[in-house]
Amino acid sequence: MRKILIQLDTDPQPSVFDRVVAIDSGVDELFSYGGVTPENVVGLIHGAIFTRGVPDLKNTAIFIGGSNVAAGEQLLAKVQKTFFGPMRVSTMMDSNGSNTTAAAAVLACRKHVPLTGASVLILAGTGPVGHRAAQILTAEGAEVRVGSRTRDKAEQTCFAIAKVLCAARVIPVATGTDAELGEACDGVSLIIAAGAAGIELLSAELRASLKSLRVAVDLNAVPPLGIGGIEVMDKAKDRDGQLCYGAIGIGGTKMKIHRAAVARLFESNDQVLDTAAIYAIGQSL
Amino acid sequence: MRKILIQLDTDPQPSVFDRVVAIDSGVDELFSYGGVTPENVVGLIHGAIFTRGVPDLKNTAIFIGGSNVAAGEQLLAKVQKTFFGPMRVSTMMDSNGSNTTAAAAVLACRKHVPLTGASVLILAGTGPVGHRAAQILTAEGAEVRVGSRTRDKAEQTCFAIAKVLCAARVIPVATGTDAELGEACDGVSLIIAAGAAGIELLSAELRASLKSLRVAVDLNAVPPLGIGGIEVMDKAKDRDGQLCYGAIGIGGTKMKIHRAAVARLFESNDQVLDTAAIYAIGQSL
Amino acid sequence: MRKILIQLDTDPQPSVFDRVVAIDSGVDELFSYGGVTPENVVGLIHGAIFTRGVPDLKNTAIFIGGSNVAAGEQLLAKVQKTFFGPMRVSTMMDSNGSNTTAAAAVLACRKHVPLTGASVLILAGTGPVGHRAAQILTAEGAEVRVGSRTRDKAEQTCFAIAKVLCAARVIPVATGTDAELGEACDGVSLIIAAGAAGIELLSAELRASLKSLRVAVDLNAVPPLGIGGIEVMDKAKDRDGQLCYGAIGIGGTKMKIHRAAVARLFESNDQVLDTAAIYAIGQSL
Repeated sequence: MRKILIQLDTDPQPSVFDRVVAIDSGVDELFSYGGVTPENVVGLIHGAIFTRGVPDLKNTAIFIGGSNVAAGEQLLAKVQKTFFGPMRVSTMMDSNGSNTTAAAAVLACRKHVPLTGASVLILAGTGPVGHRAAQILTAEGAEVRVGSRTRDKAEQTCFAIAKVLCAARVIPVATGTDAELGEACDGVSLIIAAGAAGIELLSAELRASLKSLRVAVDLNAVPPLGIGGIEVMDKAKDRDGQLCYGAIGIGGTKMKIHRAAVARLFESNDQVLDTAAIYAIGQSL
Repeated sequence: MRKILIQLDTDPQPSVFDRVVAIDSGVDELFSYGGVTPENVVGLIHGAIFTRGVPDLKNTAIFIGGSNVAAGEQLLAKVQKTFFGPMRVSTMMDSNGSNTTAAAAVLACRKHVPLTGASVLILAGTGPVGHRAAQILTAEGAEVRVGSRTRDKAEQTCFAIAKVLCAARVIPVATGTDAELGEACDGVSLIIAAGAAGIELLSAELRASLKSLRVAVDLNAVPPLGIGGIEVMDKAKDRDGQLCYGAIGIGGTKMKIHRAAVARLFESNDQVLDTAAIYAIGQSL
Repeated sequence: MRKILIQLDTDPQPSVFDRVVAIDSGVDELFSYGGVTPENVVGLIHGAIFTRGVPDLKNTAIFIGGSNVAAGEQLLAKVQKTFFGPMRVSTMMDSNGSNTTAAAAVLACRKHVPLTGASVLILAGTGPVGHRAAQILTAEGAEVRVGSRTRDKAEQTCFAIAKVLCAARVIPVATGTDAELGEACDGVSLIIAAGAAGIELLSAELRASLKSLRVAVDLNAVPPLGIGGIEVMDKAKDRDGQLCYGAIGIGGTKMKIHRAAVARLFESNDQVLDTAAIYAIGQSL
């Protein structure tokens, strides 16, 4: 029985990126849909769950993607609500690469610094990748500061993480002014920058001056990068006594996690591969 | 040479259901199109018939589907009109599963009651599945009553069937009132209910009271079912001395017919698999 | 590693024709997109170039098609502009079959007449196929007359060809009146008609009267053909001492070139298969 992956993309055109990775993950047949919404997805899900017998349903799976992570989350919620009893197929959600990228960034940090008790700053921590990196690190026992221009916005992300992780402590910090940023960086051993393309969030000078900083990860592939002095190909590159990673330095691990997660979908019909599960797959590699 | 199935769906998104079944029927390559209309289909058909030599055209085929059966019929007519001489590929039409479901329902009845001369009532007989079940049974020599709320609507379906089957006799009956329904059921040995989801067409009490009734088939998967007392998993389940079938009890045969019909497409390039041909395939299984 | 072809079609529905040929060319996976424009193509290209390592990028390729050749040319330009450094995949452009058809027409002529120095008339030479046939023949050293109803329109095509071929000489000719057409035909050994369906560009009488004419090719599959007396199946058919080709007579070679060009895409990641390259592939067959 052939392994079918149903790609549900919230963008008008289904992502070529996700299609190539699906093929390279060993999927036999790929059904790709663009413009998928909670409104039009129900018939597609019924087609997935009503066509093969329950023991064979592990050979059908769903991948949710697209550039809009909030839309992907809504779609995932609707998909899970449409399943019932054993009538379900395994589902992975990785809109905009958010889960696989966050997992790869944390795994890079983890190679060099024990995460439990580590003090971490996530710059642009309210975006999809930053949010997920903060969540994974908090679950690992790190003391995470979620940075945003204003403390208010950061607080919302911390509430969301605390809710998922049963009241875990996450610290919202403002990074809008130089003084705020300096304070946010104080004493941290890990920094992950997950901001929009082309905006420097932390200067090379301030970074170099941080005595406690052990690992700095920038997830932006387009110069100028989010953290000054880091280059996109950096992979544990020593800069000023700090181990630096750029987006491409993280990319290899991200791709491995993505492929492994897609392959994992076909082991049973009841998995939901979201942030925690995708990180766990990354750990097992 | 790889077997290519071209799925032409009249809905905006091509059906996942039909795609999974196509793969499980052994199709090598599936080209799926949504939003197909008689207006935009001609170029697609030219692409099907002008790319492989005539002796190889049996390796390309067309499947017409979608939730709107009337739209599927119009598309089938346009597709056949676009073919010319030996420049054609085999085509199957099964919008909303209408042909495969009707065939499976009749085959269930046929296991228990000789169809020639049998008296049959089709409830909601003017819908796509009911219409097709009535047509198949009439062709088999049964005396078929096509039921609808009003006799007028039922008459139209009977005219349509008579036209296809060269003036065969089909009987329109009204089932809108209790008195009409009682009369419609009088003396029948088979009842098939093919109505919309969630509407009971025949109560459990009335059904149980029908002394002549041997087999009752309900094709609705969502409770309340169309025939009272039947359950969706029923498969020749004895209830009050009557053999009962629910939608899932019929579903296994429906899927087998669907898969066999798709596989059959690739045996030659000149087949048109509509109601009668799909029923014949079901008989041969 | 599976060979992936990404079909970018400028029409709303991706061409079935191009899909079947892609499969018959040995492509393993086909990602088909309709409605592709220079505006929405960038993300698709990034997905193509950022998913596999550079040494593996030759296993991914792009095919640009659709009925509008100008739209295809704009898309090709945008695709090439999106590539950078080694981050690129091989790309073929054959909107409306323009390149493969023109190449096949010229190869048919070449079997019977040495192209260098040959005097050629292209009827409807300003359309996509005519333009490309004129360009290939000019590059081969023929003396090409590009015919159009008015000399002005023909001149634009000649300028465009001269620009691509570094100031090569191409001759614009008007063919709007009988006198102009007679003059345009005077002394030519080859005529290719590449006009719209159903318009006769050259009568059977005038053709038969041309003493110098050796080969006449008509690329129109729908009667009346563009050159009187030719039939669509003609393949080097002697008519009035002239070797005649119809659209289907050319079609076999066109298909071989199309398949060979798609297969060639997967030999390296840096090819651009446009007019000259596709003709070269045709020559090598």
